[in-house]
Amino acid sequence: MPFARISLARGKSRDYLRALSDQLHAALVESFDVPPNDRFQVIHQHDQDDIIFDPHYMDMDRSADLVYIALTTGKPRSTETKKRFFQTLARRLEANPGIRPDDIMVIISTSRRDEWSFGKGLAQMLEGATEEDIS
Amino acid sequence: MPFARISLARGKSRDYLRALSDQLHAALVESFDVPPNDRFQVIHQHDQDDIIFDPHYMDMDRSADLVYIALTTGKPRSTETKKRFFQTLARRLEANPGIRPDDIMVIISTSRRDEWSFGKGLAQMLEGATEEDIS
Amino acid sequence: MPFARISLARGKSRDYLRALSDQLHAALVESFDVPPNDRFQVIHQHDQDDIIFDPHYMDMDRSADLVYIALTTGKPRSTETKKRFFQTLARRLEANPGIRPDDIMVIISTSRRDEWSFGKGLAQMLEGATEEDIS
Repeated sequence: MPFARISLARGKSRDYLRALSDQLHAALVESFDVPPNDRFQVIHQHDQDDIIFDPHYMDMDRSADLVYIALTTGKPRSTETKKRFFQTLARRLEANPGIRPDDIMVIISTSRRDEWSFGKGLAQMLEGATEEDIS
Repeated sequence: MPFARISLARGKSRDYLRALSDQLHAALVESFDVPPNDRFQVIHQHDQDDIIFDPHYMDMDRSADLVYIALTTGKPRSTETKKRFFQTLARRLEANPGIRPDDIMVIISTSRRDEWSFGKGLAQMLEGATEEDIS
Repeated sequence: MPFARISLARGKSRDYLRALSDQLHAALVESFDVPPNDRFQVIHQHDQDDIIFDPHYMDMDRSADLVYIALTTGKPRSTETKKRFFQTLARRLEANPGIRPDDIMVIISTSRRDEWSFGKGLAQMLEGATEEDIS
């Protein structure tokens, strides 16, 4: 259910993009409590000049390979879970396709269970929802 | 006031994209309590390989025509309103431009009234806002 | 820490885009309490027909130069701060690169401190976070 919007500069190979997509999803499954088949992502390929960043903020050494990963998720997760996910993601992307951990920026936004439709005009996440999920 | 970010694979005709835009807006007006002139959308056209999804999660049969519709809205709506909107949207997009309901994925995010500027450097949604809208 | 996603029609010069990026960042620093090195933006260049808007809603006179600025921020700001930011941004973008204030639309979304990783797999904004930031 997290929906991932990935932004990076144009020019990477299809293998690179596929590994990025695969490893992001694997990190979500491993550390973010996401079912294996719950995979929804888009990749935005930008002109290099349209990926704008400070190279050193927060003590990083960012390069032209910077990747922005913006996740929208439909249920809250604990701070510990989020921290573990960030670590898992950095480890996995460093291994394959070989993205330096300084070049991985992640922004999570949390919406509500009743704000997702996975198709057929239904609000699937309300199945089994508790009272507090419904307004 | 919902701002819609639509992502789909490149290659659809301008008529198709226009119908998608029109029917999304009509569904917002019909079922989401949106004024007819309150229309703000962007369409992202991606390489087909950059639209990534599980074909069957949540019992769907998704195809290369999958459309991601990410809405940001500035005021809360009830679960009933959201459910009605999902249904209306699926019905309308199936009729025109002919998108199968399994290929329509919607993600709503709700921000606050004071987080919108419609132009001129003003926060227009604060007009008539109640105390709880202001921090 | 705000992450800015800028959408506009393709065809502007690199100088125009650079000024837009610079002035947006300067407005964040001036009025939104953002450190000067905390700069993270992407620009999406769309087909003109994929930037969709009502020309007059909320008493504006919008043109083909419309810019959507979607900001995700990691900590709450007061309504007064947001209002000041909208004004500063409109003033700055009007001066350079010369965007009419009617053509500047801003949507802010607020996520949580533990939802950001600036690299190295860490959740940097938790440093110095208070108890209420952690779940």
